[in-house]
Amino acid sequence: MAVNIQKGLAAAGLAPLHVWNRTASKAEPVQAEGAIVEPSLESLASKCSLIFAMTFDDAALESAFSAISALSNKSKETENKILVTCSTVAPSLVQQLEHKTKSVSVLSAPVFGRPDAAAAKMLVAVLAGGSETEKNLVAKYLEYTTRKITRLGGPAHTANVLKLTGNFCILSVIEMLAQAQTLAEKNGVPREAVVDVVSALMPGPIVTGYSERIARDEFDVGFTVDGGLKDVGLMRDLASSSSVSLPFADIAHGHLERQKAENKDLDWASLAKIVRKDSHL
Amino acid sequence: MAVNIQKGLAAAGLAPLHVWNRTASKAEPVQAEGAIVEPSLESLASKCSLIFAMTFDDAALESAFSAISALSNKSKETENKILVTCSTVAPSLVQQLEHKTKSVSVLSAPVFGRPDAAAAKMLVAVLAGGSETEKNLVAKYLEYTTRKITRLGGPAHTANVLKLTGNFCILSVIEMLAQAQTLAEKNGVPREAVVDVVSALMPGPIVTGYSERIARDEFDVGFTVDGGLKDVGLMRDLASSSSVSLPFADIAHGHLERQKAENKDLDWASLAKIVRKDSHL
Repeated sequence: MAVNIQKGLAAAGLAPLHVWNRTASKAEPVQAEGAIVEPSLESLASKCSLIFAMTFDDAALESAFSAISALSNKSKETENKILVTCSTVAPSLVQQLEHKTKSVSVLSAPVFGRPDAAAAKMLVAVLAGGSETEKNLVAKYLEYTTRKITRLGGPAHTANVLKLTGNFCILSVIEMLAQAQTLAEKNGVPREAVVDVVSALMPGPIVTGYSERIARDEFDVGFTVDGGLKDVGLMRDLASSSSVSLPFADIAHGHLERQKAENKDLDWASLAKIVRKDSHL
Repeated sequence: MAVNIQKGLAAAGLAPLHVWNRTASKAEPVQAEGAIVEPSLESLASKCSLIFAMTFDDAALESAFSAISALSNKSKETENKILVTCSTVAPSLVQQLEHKTKSVSVLSAPVFGRPDAAAAKMLVAVLAGGSETEKNLVAKYLEYTTRKITRLGGPAHTANVLKLTGNFCILSVIEMLAQAQTLAEKNGVPREAVVDVVSALMPGPIVTGYSERIARDEFDVGFTVDGGLKDVGLMRDLASSSSVSLPFADIAHGHLERQKAENKDLDWASLAKIVRKDSHL
């Protein structure tokens, strides 16, 4: 994603992008495109006013926020930073960070899609928090990689609620496809015929893509079972803290837990193996 | 649907269509287009060799089959009828009928879509049973109302398995959307924003259509809770008879049963009212 943003900035005459990654080698492809690699987050934060954070989890976002706000408290010239969190993290964490210090505006802009979708400008983004001016600024950068941005009028963390809601739908579709193909296969209908009909009824890369991968047992690449368990944990925490019943997430969670015991590194769609096993396939 | 087939036959120089309906008034619009209304199923069966049956339920299909096969047993000239069942009925019933008599070839061609989709040539059909020649003949007529026909190489009842599998996916999507909108709404995100994101992730009229109707509480028209309960009953019978675990159908069934106690005549997407109630909305 950073590579594409750098390319977009360069094309718009706005380069360079300053980048920092916990694993230095990951910044190399962006550097090759003309970005400036910073030696530390503090160094990056001292030079930039708009910072996009794509962290692995809640803990990494919290430590990035601490580094930025510590810096903005030390020096007057580094005040008024904008931190945009793009990760799938707990809405409650974003809610905490949002009002922690006046010197850092927290916006949230999680995106749907894999890296190849970013390259093709096909991500779907959700954007919330900050002022309208800040949202417009952030949207300008998001546009380099997205085909659609849904803006919310509420505080930043509502974007994380919507991101978890979208991920809940993707996970539900995976579980649905696994159950559907199993029902068909056990009754003499090939999995491919289910792919054919479901793709006609519900077109688009998510349903068709997962449908094909489940039918062909292609679970080697993608979003892992471990990643899926992190996400479904966030969904269920959100449901539980807001007294929402979310039975589809509970079912998929059980299947992911059991698939983790088999192989946690496969794509999360490999929960289909457990679904099949439960139906004696 | 019959109106559109009659129009297509007329355009192709193959008119007229002979029609019979248990409720005589329902045949009037087709008659207005030039079809010949028959006074009884026996009368229709004595004149036609290719008969499409769109029955309300299993019992109606069984009685139509009996009338046609009784006739074909009586007279040599009415032998070799082709009966095409287009309804959502139990695969086990079609399997029974398929080998009951040599004089009636049973094919199955259930379709996905509402009457307006038939008029727009947008139905999705599944076709199984009979010989290749018979399938080609049936496909020729289906093409007047469909945008896609998935052919199966197995016996006729496999088309009914696939139809129930597709309906299972539609029902799962309804239940998923109800849960997703509830999770979002309870956490400060408007239902409409969920419609926006889910429509971008999973485009197409089924996901977007149900998503919008659930968000706007538009449950007055469509496929009823009672119809949904008939279908989910068929899905669960099929799952049970083939030792398949189908937890998404079980959850939606519970919600449809409870919604039936409230109002069985609303669209089956009104199960969302129960989902919301369980989350105290």
